[in-house]
Amino acid sequence: MAQKMKAAIFVEKGRIVLDEKPVPEIGPTDALVRITTTTICGTDVHILKGEYPVEKRLTIGHEPVGIIEKLGSGVEGFAEGQRVIAGAITPSGWSNACLCGCGAQDGAGTRHGWKAIGGWKFGNTIDGCQAEYVRVPDAMANLAVIPEGVSDEQVLMCPDIMSTGFSGAETAGVRIGDTVAVFAQGPIGLCATAGARLMGATTIIAVDAVPARMAMAKRMGADHVIDFKADNPVDAIMRLTDGRGVDVAIEALGTQGTFESGLRALRPGGTLSSLGVYSTDLKIPLDAFGAGLADKQIRSTLCPGGKERMRRMMQVVASGRVDLGGLVTHRFKLDQIEQAYDLFGHQRDGVLKVAITP
Amino acid sequence: MAQKMKAAIFVEKGRIVLDEKPVPEIGPTDALVRITTTTICGTDVHILKGEYPVEKRLTIGHEPVGIIEKLGSGVEGFAEGQRVIAGAITPSGWSNACLCGCGAQDGAGTRHGWKAIGGWKFGNTIDGCQAEYVRVPDAMANLAVIPEGVSDEQVLMCPDIMSTGFSGAETAGVRIGDTVAVFAQGPIGLCATAGARLMGATTIIAVDAVPARMAMAKRMGADHVIDFKADNPVDAIMRLTDGRGVDVAIEALGTQGTFESGLRALRPGGTLSSLGVYSTDLKIPLDAFGAGLADKQIRSTLCPGGKERMRRMMQVVASGRVDLGGLVTHRFKLDQIEQAYDLFGHQRDGVLKVAITP
Amino acid sequence: MAQKMKAAIFVEKGRIVLDEKPVPEIGPTDALVRITTTTICGTDVHILKGEYPVEKRLTIGHEPVGIIEKLGSGVEGFAEGQRVIAGAITPSGWSNACLCGCGAQDGAGTRHGWKAIGGWKFGNTIDGCQAEYVRVPDAMANLAVIPEGVSDEQVLMCPDIMSTGFSGAETAGVRIGDTVAVFAQGPIGLCATAGARLMGATTIIAVDAVPARMAMAKRMGADHVIDFKADNPVDAIMRLTDGRGVDVAIEALGTQGTFESGLRALRPGGTLSSLGVYSTDLKIPLDAFGAGLADKQIRSTLCPGGKERMRRMMQVVASGRVDLGGLVTHRFKLDQIEQAYDLFGHQRDGVLKVAITP
Amino acid sequence: MAQKMKAAIFVEKGRIVLDEKPVPEIGPTDALVRITTTTICGTDVHILKGEYPVEKRLTIGHEPVGIIEKLGSGVEGFAEGQRVIAGAITPSGWSNACLCGCGAQDGAGTRHGWKAIGGWKFGNTIDGCQAEYVRVPDAMANLAVIPEGVSDEQVLMCPDIMSTGFSGAETAGVRIGDTVAVFAQGPIGLCATAGARLMGATTIIAVDAVPARMAMAKRMGADHVIDFKADNPVDAIMRLTDGRGVDVAIEALGTQGTFESGLRALRPGGTLSSLGVYSTDLKIPLDAFGAGLADKQIRSTLCPGGKERMRRMMQVVASGRVDLGGLVTHRFKLDQIEQAYDLFGHQRDGVLKVAITP
Repeated sequence: MAQKMKAAIFVEKGRIVLDEKPVPEIGPTDALVRITTTTICGTDVHILKGEYPVEKRLTIGHEPVGIIEKLGSGVEGFAEGQRVIAGAITPSGWSNACLCGCGAQDGAGTRHGWKAIGGWKFGNTIDGCQAEYVRVPDAMANLAVIPEGVSDEQVLMCPDIMSTGFSGAETAGVRIGDTVAVFAQGPIGLCATAGARLMGATTIIAVDAVPARMAMAKRMGADHVIDFKADNPVDAIMRLTDGRGVDVAIEALGTQGTFESGLRALRPGGTLSSLGVYSTDLKIPLDAFGAGLADKQIRSTLCPGGKERMRRMMQVVASGRVDLGGLVTHRFKLDQIEQAYDLFGHQRDGVLKVAITP
Repeated sequence: MAQKMKAAIFVEKGRIVLDEKPVPEIGPTDALVRITTTTICGTDVHILKGEYPVEKRLTIGHEPVGIIEKLGSGVEGFAEGQRVIAGAITPSGWSNACLCGCGAQDGAGTRHGWKAIGGWKFGNTIDGCQAEYVRVPDAMANLAVIPEGVSDEQVLMCPDIMSTGFSGAETAGVRIGDTVAVFAQGPIGLCATAGARLMGATTIIAVDAVPARMAMAKRMGADHVIDFKADNPVDAIMRLTDGRGVDVAIEALGTQGTFESGLRALRPGGTLSSLGVYSTDLKIPLDAFGAGLADKQIRSTLCPGGKERMRRMMQVVASGRVDLGGLVTHRFKLDQIEQAYDLFGHQRDGVLKVAITP
Repeated sequence: MAQKMKAAIFVEKGRIVLDEKPVPEIGPTDALVRITTTTICGTDVHILKGEYPVEKRLTIGHEPVGIIEKLGSGVEGFAEGQRVIAGAITPSGWSNACLCGCGAQDGAGTRHGWKAIGGWKFGNTIDGCQAEYVRVPDAMANLAVIPEGVSDEQVLMCPDIMSTGFSGAETAGVRIGDTVAVFAQGPIGLCATAGARLMGATTIIAVDAVPARMAMAKRMGADHVIDFKADNPVDAIMRLTDGRGVDVAIEALGTQGTFESGLRALRPGGTLSSLGVYSTDLKIPLDAFGAGLADKQIRSTLCPGGKERMRRMMQVVASGRVDLGGLVTHRFKLDQIEQAYDLFGHQRDGVLKVAITP
Repeated sequence: MAQKMKAAIFVEKGRIVLDEKPVPEIGPTDALVRITTTTICGTDVHILKGEYPVEKRLTIGHEPVGIIEKLGSGVEGFAEGQRVIAGAITPSGWSNACLCGCGAQDGAGTRHGWKAIGGWKFGNTIDGCQAEYVRVPDAMANLAVIPEGVSDEQVLMCPDIMSTGFSGAETAGVRIGDTVAVFAQGPIGLCATAGARLMGATTIIAVDAVPARMAMAKRMGADHVIDFKADNPVDAIMRLTDGRGVDVAIEALGTQGTFESGLRALRPGGTLSSLGVYSTDLKIPLDAFGAGLADKQIRSTLCPGGKERMRRMMQVVASGRVDLGGLVTHRFKLDQIEQAYDLFGHQRDGVLKVAITP
C-alpha cells in the first residue's frame, strides 16, 4: 500500500485545501524529492480563483526546494540525499522545442514537438510541490544541486520569480548604458529590476504605488521610482529621459494599463518585454506603435527552466550579486498553507512572498 | 534666378498634381540627383487620400534612381555623372539612433538623437523624387552607385519595397529550415516572400486572394499559396504544418485581420514580423498570445536605408538571386504621373508597380 | 545467445575490416536501427590512418540511415518500422552543454556537464553505423523520421556533411548581400558553399584545384571558382572584391594554408568560420590579424546534431532547395566496405562520397 | 598668422617631446576642442618605442576631455563652451563600415568603405589630444556632452580603456551566471573585469602578478585573483571551476602567453575575447583548440567609439555603477608630459593611469 503524504490540492474554484495523497511513484527517468521549502506564486492564486483551469485534486505549487529521496533506475549523475531545486518549468530536454532552446514551450509527446506553455508541468499538468514529496520528471535535465553554504530560503526564488524576472531583462537584450523602465514591483517586477541592474542598465525606473514595494525597488537597483498614483508614469519617464523614452520597458503585472504604458514609454526602436499573465485581450494603440513604423518590438517570455538555468540563478545568489532574502516576508508550515493562501491571496500585511516548510 | 523643373506635389487631400518648382539647391553635404526612373508607393496613395499628413506643396516620392548632377562642397568619394540610387530612408549617419544601427528612427537634430520614423525624409519631411531632380541629404551616407550592366528598372525596387520586404524576414531572424507564412502578396509581401526564400526558409506559405499576386508569389519562392477567400488561412496553415504553426509570420498589409492571423499562425516561441502601415489600433487576442506565456514576439520594421543597405540590395539584383523585374507592370512619363496615380491608387489593370521616367 | 551482424571495425592503424559482432542490446532510452544506407567520412579515414585514436574493435561510422528495429521501454513518440536518420552528433538533451544549446560538446556523465567533442559518439566513443544495426542513444532526442517520398541517398548527407557544411555559414552569421569565400570544395566545403547560398550571400567565391570539385562548386552555388594552383587565392579574392575582402571566409579542409588564407581574405570586422579538423598547431600571422585590432573573429563549429537539426536538414532536401544527390559518386555493399575505404581513402576515380548499403 | 599651442609630438623612435604647433584649423564638419584633461595610453608607449609607426611630428594622444572652442559651419546640435569628450576612435558615421555598425574599421575615403583600424585617427593618422587643442573630425558623430556634476577625471577613462575593456565582455556576450577569466589587470584588463561584472558574470577570475593590480582587480569586481607567478593560471582556473573551464576568457595584454592561456582556460564552446595589441604572430595550440572541433571562438575588438558609445560610458560613471577614479594614480601638467611618459613608460611607482592637464 502506497505511503501517504500531505499535499495542497485544488478542489474547486475558491478552494485549495490540505489533504492526503499517496507519495508519488517514479519512473526510470524521474526523481522523488522530499520538499523542505516551497512557496506560493501569484499564478497559484489565479488557480484558486478559478481563473486558470487545472484538474480537480491536482497538487498545486511549482517552486520546489528539497532533498533527493529516490532516483529512477535510469538517472545518473545525482545521489540520494543531495539538496536540490528544480525550476518551475521542467523541460524534457528532448522535444523539438527543447532542442531549439525553447524548453518553456516543450512539446514532449506531441507529433511535432511543440506545445504552448508545455514546459510548465508542476501544479499545472502534473502534481506540484506544495506537498511533502514531489516527482520531478526528466530528472537529469531538471535537478540542480544547491551550492554548499546556501540556505533554502536563499534559493527559494530561483525556480520561478528570479528566473522569470531576470528573463524580462535578458529577452529584451539589456545592454550596458541602457535606460530601462519596469512596470509593477511585485516579486516578478522586483526581480526584473534586479535583472536589469545585473545586465548593466544605468538608468532603471521602477513604477508602482505600494510604498513597501517602492522601497524594495530601490534596494533591487532602481535609480528612480515612480508612484503611478501620484504621477502619470509615461509623462514622468519622458521627463526623466528628456523626451527620449526608454530603451527597454518590462511589463510585470499582466494588465492593459502596464502593457500600454510600457509601449508608450519606449523610444523608437525600443523593446517591450512582457512577463505578465494577461486575462483579457490587449490593445496596441496606433500612436504608441508608430503605426507600425517605429521599429518597436514586443517580446513575451515564460520562465526559463532546466538545471543549467537553475545553476545560473543559484550562482547569482551564491556570489552575492543579488540578495532576494528580503522578499520572504512571512513563513508558514505546510499544515498552515490554507492560512498562507488567505494572506497571500489577499495581499495582506505587506506580504511579498511566503515560505512554506513541510 | 533658380532653374525650374517639374515635380509631383501634394496640393490637398485627393490632389497630387504635376507642377513647376525650382530645382533644389544643395548644401555642403548634399547631392543633387537627376531622376531617370522612380515609382509610386502605397504610402504615396495614403498621402494622396489625406490619410498620412504632409505639408502642402511638398514633392512626393521616395524611390530615386538617377544620375549625380552636382555634389556639395564637402562630399567626397563620388563623381558627377555616376548612376546612383538612394534609399527611401536616408539616415544621417551621425545621430544617436544611427550610431545604434537604427537609422530609420534617425533623430538628427533632436536633443537626444532619436525621432520616430525620422529616417524617412523624401516625400515626407523634405521634397521627394517624383520630379526631375532631387536633393539627397547626407550624400556620403546615402548615395549608392549602380553596378555596371544593371538597368534602372532592375534596381527600382531596391530603395523601398525590396529593402522593406527583405527586412521582414531579416528582423524575424529566418533560419535554414524555417516555415514562414507571409500575409498579403502586394509588392512588399512579394519581397518578403523572396526574402524568406533567400534566407533559407524551406516551407513558405503565401496568403492572398488576387490571382495575379498568387501566381507571382509562386515565382518569388512560395511553396504554398492560400486563397484567403476560399479558405481560413490560419486553419489552412495549421493543416499544412500538422498543427504545429509557423516559425515566422510576416504581416505585409497593415490590417487587424492580417496581424491577428499572423499571431494565430505562429507556433509557440514564434515571431510575428510586422511590415504594414496600420491605420487603427491593433488587438492582440488573449488566446493568440497564450495569455503572455507563449514566448511569442511581435517585431515591427521600417524600411532600412543608407548606401550599404542599397549596395546589398543591388547585389541581390546583380547576382541574379532575385528577379523583381516582373513587378513593374506599367510605365509612365513624369508628365503622365497623375494618370499613374489614378491607375495605381485604384489598383486597376492588375497593376503591381509602375515605373515613372522624367 | 546474441544474434550476430556484420560491422566495419577498427583493428589497428591501417586496418578497418568487416567482421562479426553481436547485434547491439538497447537500454530503456535507446533505439535499435537497422541500417539501410550509410557512408564513409573523411574523419573515418583519419581513424584508419591512426591519426585519430579510437578503441580497438570499435565499429566505425556516424552517418546512419535506416529503419527502427526496436525501441527502448522508455521511448515514446516513435514506432518500429519507421524510416529514420540520426545525426553524426547525438546530444543527450539533458547535459548542461545541451541545455545551453551546445549539444556537440555534450558532457552527459561529467560532473559539470561539458565535454569537448562529447556529442560525437557513433564510431568514436560507442559503436557506429557501418554495420547492419546500430544502437542510437537518447533516442527521443535523436531519431528523425524521413519525410515521405525522400530516398535514402537524398538524406545520406544530412547527418554529417550537410549539417557541418551549413553550420559554417550559420555560425558566421551570413547575411543577405554578403560576400563569402569557401576554402576547399570537398564534400564539407561544397555543403558550406550551398549553405552560404541558402542564407543569402550574393557573391560566393569557392577555392579548390580539382576540376570535378570546381565544377560541382558552381552547381552548389559558387559565383566564382578560384584554382589555387593557378592563382594565389587571397590575391584573386582581393581582385574580385576590389581590395575589400570578404565578409565571411569558411575554412573546410583543416590546414594552416586554408586557415591562414581565410584570415587574410577577410575584410576588417569579418568572420573566419572554421570547419576543418586540424592535425597541427595553427599560426595566426600578425598582419592577417591586424595585430589584434581589426575586429576579426575566428569561430569553429562541430557538426550540429539532434532530431530537430536533422528535421531541418531533411526539409532542405525535401523542399528541393539544395540537391546533394550528385555528391554520391560510388556505391558499395557493406560486404565491399574495405574496397570502399581503399577508394575513398585514396580519393581515386573522382570520388566525392560513397553510399554503403548492408 | 596661426595661433600657436603646445603639443606632445613624435619626433623619432624614443622621443616624444613637447613642442609648439599651430592651433588646428577646422573644416565645416569639424570641431575645435580645448583640452582640459587627457592621459597617456599604453599604445602611445608603443609609438614612443617605435613599435607602432606614425608620421614624424604627429601630435600624440587619443583620450580628449575638454571644452568646445569652435564649431565648423555645418555642425548643429552643439554649442561652444560645452564640456565634451570624444572617443579614441572617431567614426565618420557615413562609411560602409560605419553603416554596418563597425566604426572602428571606418573606411571613409576608401573605394569600398572599409579600412583596418581606420576608425582610430587621433594620434595615429591625424593630430591627437596631448596638446592644448584638438580638431575633432565628423564632430556631430563624435562629440559627447559630459553630464552635469561629473568631473574630468571621472570621464577620462571613457574614450579608450573603459570602452575597450567593457567591449571585451560585450563582444564575448557575457551572460548572467557566466564564469569569466580576465588575463592581465592593467588598465584595460581592470575595465574588462568591471565590464564582466556589469554584465552579470557571477564568477570572475582575474590573473596578474603585480600586487597593486591584484588588489584593484578585487575592487573592480573580481571574485578570485590568481597570481601567475605563484600558480599556473590555467591549472588554477580548472581547480576553481571543477575542471569545467570558463565561459569567457578575456585577453588584455597582447602576448602569446595570455592568448594561449585564455584559449586553454575555456570550456568547450567558450569564447576568447581578445583586446591586446600583439607584436608577434600567434600560435593556436592544437589541443587548446580541440583540433577545430571544440566550438571555440576567438573574437578581437578594437575600442568602440562615437558619441552614443561615449554617452553610454559616461552614464556608467554618472550612475555610480563603476568607479574608475582609483585608476588615476599620478597627475601632471602638459608641460611635464615628458616626465609623465618616462614614469608611465617604465611603469614606475605603481602607476596605473596618469592625468595630464594643459
